Amino acid sequence: MDHSVADLPNGPLDFYRRKASFNWKDMLLFIEGEDILAFKRHVSNALEGDPLFARQPGEDVPIAKMRELTFLRVKQLFRYDFLTRDEVMANPWKTVALSDCLGMYDWAMSAKYFLNKGMFGATIANAGSNRHSKYVENTENMTTYGCFALTELSHGSNTRAMRTTATYDPATQEFVINSPDFEAAKFWVGNLGKTATHAMVFAQLYTPDQVCHGLHSFIVQVRDTKTLLALPGVLVGDMGKKLGQNGLDNGFALFHNVRIPRENLLNKTGDVTPDGCYVTPFKDPNKRFGESLGALSGGRVSITRMALVNLKLALIVAIRFSATRRQFGPRNTEEIPVLEYQLQQWRLIPYLAAAYALEHFSKSIFMNFAEFQLGQMMRDKSGRQAEMGREIHAIGCSSKPLGSWTAQRGIQECREACGGHGYLAMNRLGDLRNDNDPNCTYEGDNNVLLQQTSNYLLSWLHAKQSDGVRIESPFHSVDFLDDFHKILETKFTARTMEECMDSAVPLAAYKWLVCFLLEESRSRLEQQRASGKEDFEARNSSQVYYCRSLAIAYIELNCLQRFHDQATDEDTPPGLRPVLSKLCALYGLWSLSSHMVTLYQGEYLSGRKPTELVQMAILTLCSQLKDDAVTLVDVFAPSDFILNSPIGNADGQLYKNLWATVMQGSQVLERPSWWKEFSSDKPVVGCLRPKL
Amino acid sequence: MDHSVADLPNGPLDFYRRKASFNWKDMLLFIEGEDILAFKRHVSNALEGDPLFARQPGEDVPIAKMRELTFLRVKQLFRYDFLTRDEVMANPWKTVALSDCLGMYDWAMSAKYFLNKGMFGATIANAGSNRHSKYVENTENMTTYGCFALTELSHGSNTRAMRTTATYDPATQEFVINSPDFEAAKFWVGNLGKTATHAMVFAQLYTPDQVCHGLHSFIVQVRDTKTLLALPGVLVGDMGKKLGQNGLDNGFALFHNVRIPRENLLNKTGDVTPDGCYVTPFKDPNKRFGESLGALSGGRVSITRMALVNLKLALIVAIRFSATRRQFGPRNTEEIPVLEYQLQQWRLIPYLAAAYALEHFSKSIFMNFAEFQLGQMMRDKSGRQAEMGREIHAIGCSSKPLGSWTAQRGIQECREACGGHGYLAMNRLGDLRNDNDPNCTYEGDNNVLLQQTSNYLLSWLHAKQSDGVRIESPFHSVDFLDDFHKILETKFTARTMEECMDSAVPLAAYKWLVCFLLEESRSRLEQQRASGKEDFEARNSSQVYYCRSLAIAYIELNCLQRFHDQATDEDTPPGLRPVLSKLCALYGLWSLSSHMVTLYQGEYLSGRKPTELVQMAILTLCSQLKDDAVTLVDVFAPSDFILNSPIGNADGQLYKNLWATVMQGSQVLERPSWWKEFSSDKPVVGCLRPKL
Repeated sequence: MDHSVADLPNGPLDFYRRKASFNWKDMLLFIEGEDILAFKRHVSNALEGDPLFARQPGEDVPIAKMRELTFLRVKQLFRYDFLTRDEVMANPWKTVALSDCLGMYDWAMSAKYFLNKGMFGATIANAGSNRHSKYVENTENMTTYGCFALTELSHGSNTRAMRTTATYDPATQEFVINSPDFEAAKFWVGNLGKTATHAMVFAQLYTPDQVCHGLHSFIVQVRDTKTLLALPGVLVGDMGKKLGQNGLDNGFALFHNVRIPRENLLNKTGDVTPDGCYVTPFKDPNKRFGESLGALSGGRVSITRMALVNLKLALIVAIRFSATRRQFGPRNTEEIPVLEYQLQQWRLIPYLAAAYALEHFSKSIFMNFAEFQLGQMMRDKSGRQAEMGREIHAIGCSSKPLGSWTAQRGIQECREACGGHGYLAMNRLGDLRNDNDPNCTYEGDNNVLLQQTSNYLLSWLHAKQSDGVRIESPFHSVDFLDDFHKILETKFTARTMEECMDSAVPLAAYKWLVCFLLEESRSRLEQQRASGKEDFEARNSSQVYYCRSLAIAYIELNCLQRFHDQATDEDTPPGLRPVLSKLCALYGLWSLSSHMVTLYQGEYLSGRKPTELVQMAILTLCSQLKDDAVTLVDVFAPSDFILNSPIGNADGQLYKNLWATVMQGSQVLERPSWWKEFSSDKPVVGCLRPKL
Repeated sequence: MDHSVADLPNGPLDFYRRKASFNWKDMLLFIEGEDILAFKRHVSNALEGDPLFARQPGEDVPIAKMRELTFLRVKQLFRYDFLTRDEVMANPWKTVALSDCLGMYDWAMSAKYFLNKGMFGATIANAGSNRHSKYVENTENMTTYGCFALTELSHGSNTRAMRTTATYDPATQEFVINSPDFEAAKFWVGNLGKTATHAMVFAQLYTPDQVCHGLHSFIVQVRDTKTLLALPGVLVGDMGKKLGQNGLDNGFALFHNVRIPRENLLNKTGDVTPDGCYVTPFKDPNKRFGESLGALSGGRVSITRMALVNLKLALIVAIRFSATRRQFGPRNTEEIPVLEYQLQQWRLIPYLAAAYALEHFSKSIFMNFAEFQLGQMMRDKSGRQAEMGREIHAIGCSSKPLGSWTAQRGIQECREACGGHGYLAMNRLGDLRNDNDPNCTYEGDNNVLLQQTSNYLLSWLHAKQSDGVRIESPFHSVDFLDDFHKILETKFTARTMEECMDSAVPLAAYKWLVCFLLEESRSRLEQQRASGKEDFEARNSSQVYYCRSLAIAYIELNCLQRFHDQATDEDTPPGLRPVLSKLCALYGLWSLSSHMVTLYQGEYLSGRKPTELVQMAILTLCSQLKDDAVTLVDVFAPSDFILNSPIGNADGQLYKNLWATVMQGSQVLERPSWWKEFSSDKPVVGCLRPKL
């Protein structure tokens, strides 16, 4: 046990903390490791100690003020410089740890910081060459501020259909950036609303011979770095209020023949010579396009984690609330914590299990991505590297939906489970929901992305069936498919509830499920094509109940498999294995519940017994885990300062903290400024009532 | 066709409008009737023509300003006096029509108006006597302003456990209202934050002999009517920001021995004589308690409707968006509306079907409630009247969960289906979600309420089994249970997809489902009791998968049954029956989808065919309805002014309207006030970086 981990304050939560089956500090160290733990504590303490980061739960901050505060905080982050480039190289996971911390404080601030420092720089590193390094350097000391401008008002998912043009003019050796009309305005660009001086703009590249060479990226200055005024020809502005993350200034830009130097083309995938010839190392324009959007893949893996952080925060609030809120009881005089109710357990504890599953999953797929990225940096041209690219793409395109939807639903459940108090802004569940929401949409709409994953799986099946290849992938997420036929012959065999409480049971069911849905999707597609539909239509008509379900089942299986491996790993501390195993079994069974119909449909299950066993196992696991629930969220919990939710404070003084915060509200006891409108100017009832 | 219904503006939506299978004006008149239609148009025109109601989509209004604006608008509603008491008596549905209109504009305004004018007055009428009528009259001309103070900081669902006391002092003939501590502060009271002068306070009544007579309601003045300053002994204030409905000032009050006249006790269920004796017409204190909370029942029926209105608004926005947003297509050059994608249809059109189902359902249960209420006013003491009370209670306790959850999920789906543009505040999906959210919580947490419904159903089964009574209820929602055993023997018999596309198929399945879950719940409860659990625990352990599912299935069946009756009724215009029948079948099959496991478990279904048929029927119905979808939302749509969502405007000029609204944003093109913080005071990177 690491004595540097501070104890939690005593209070009403002790009741459950004393009942925990494991030591929370051991779990914390197991999950984080000493190094990351110390780093996170350092970041958290720095923010807590800095008056610029002070805030009041639930305060009503106007958007203009929110954007100013966020900018000033981001500037302060430059001064803290919590992570140097060397430190990131030594341990890439630290970037995620920093993102965890900043996001737990405020996602808009985190986004504002990383979109400039990470995304802008990373995209240039990925798509540009040495001649662009000054742009990255300039963003590192805030000489300039960067943003990433891909989507347009009328196009998001269909990236190829972007209509902004970059036409090369050999006379001046410049590109002319132009928006054909307002529908092609760049839209939704983070940091572009008020702050960015430079934008990485995706545009259709035209050479003087009028040939379009497809989408390329260009560095375009949009504002003067001294005055922050828009440059001539650029109509740039702020999109206004969003559902959440209002500290981040999303913006739009309309270009009216804006000229930029030829060198501002990010030229890794294609370049234009001074006299206007297009040159590219790629023969296949599709491959070039894929490469130029490669920078987006890492984003989806990160979003999976970001969504998880939101889910964790909501669970901390809801479970601490449920452990201290008492309502009803066996006798009228003695009320019990609402966490004691089976219904409340069933609403919350499966999400807690999901959070533990996603904790390991998000870390483990990040490590996969880091391995892939290392290969890219090393310019690895091997088949294995290419395979890694395909697999991490398939994982990222489904892990983002899994993470963001689980968080969306979990936060909503937490909000409702806290009743009215969950509806008070100060308790943060609304912000968590609002801030998590874009995770379902950006870097690819969840439903659209899932098609990438099912395509990947179908291509494996096709390769096996037509070319007889062995199914085996670098990250092993599809290896089991090699036993496709054998797996399809398996059945649910558990006979008792106790048997069901082992994650091996849902794991086996998931393997069957993925194989079944893969076969069903394949045959559905074939049938659609056979009926004369073109590929576009055949695919569209095979998503619901087939390809979409397939992609979801695949990623749930992957998440469950990794968690199962962790829970049963001999290197996992023996004191933690029992609780992790229960969480894993619960996650597996609960996730599987939404696929039970398919299991019946394909006759993996039959009769009433299996459903009953699965349901009873879920309820029993919830009940066994309820005494661990508070401690399980203690492991995730940041300081009260970061959590910023009175009903979720570590001391469990639910009502004292809530009441104190209410009493700190602005003008809480003051009569309204418009009191005379009530007392002096009484309405004449019906005076405006015209005849109907 | 009524020519007084104005045509819709031409534009991109014509494409779908021309394809509609029915006349939208016929549908509008069928649903609303001429009288209500004219009334709604009148209210809507009045608001649109009054500058006080002007607003800008997505504007960022500080809370204090929002509360002021809402107050001023409510005051204006007194001047309009859209509905007189006589008009309400002549047609009670008009109250709902007014609530529809005001809520479509802004639910906080609607709540602020009706909590004073309806709830406060109705509760006094229900629980008080002639001596209290002056309080109602005073609220009608805004001499005073009322609120309803039941819940406390530490108690919501468990209403009996309220701790505020009202102790009678015969010396002065006053009640002394006291909050024992801050945890007993009245909390969440709408209008109490800034506006209310009088509160209906629920408190435990103590007579001088120290006997507690349980919860009673009292009229307590909390603020001076001339100055709006708190009266001595009353700590009254504003709870601060909520997730939504911020125009409404929810508040708290802590009473420190506040004295009120004896007459302020609402004395219908019990009174105290001047010398301090408690007198009551009720012998059973439980019955008295039930009667005193009776005023809450109507609320749940209304909330069902309020949630539906939110769902409609979201669907109007999402479906008009989907019909005009084009993305991808069979060829790169020609993009198709996203409504053409099976996936988008499947995400949205079932919710459209649910909205049509709930439209009829919410009206029809309101009529049931009105019938019950009439009996109450007539002091009907018959057994039938009592049965009506039990049945409407069971319906309201489950219709609120059905309506509010369907809306919650539907709005979220609409938000996501609009992609990034759905995340812009100006398009209103965020406000709809936030404003709908409390429908899941207030007037009883959904999950807690569902127990009332399952208790009702179980008591019928018990009466039949032990006393052999015939199951037959005034509103016929349980009559089918009389065939309990016969129904349990039925099976799914449809053999083709075409057969499945008839609402009779899901209807039959639902009847079986309710019977099955009723029997399962009964046997689960029995088993829990047999294992030695006390009733409280036995019930708690029978909610998940049993009683909770039972209550949900019952109300879905009820909603489906009423819709089925409407769609097949000979009085329904023949031109509308086909589309209503499709909507009804889709609603039934789609709702049923979430219970398929139970159908397999109880062997109502077996093998792969039934699921396949149901799924294919759902997809086919979605596809058949997609050309009607725009017209189906046109029927629901208020004016663009009320809808207040640029991407949902009736002209379908998605991008023009969106762009125009963005350009109207506050300081949209201005550089930020803090621009020098960027340009002059550059951060020294790492200057605050301490050693780790």
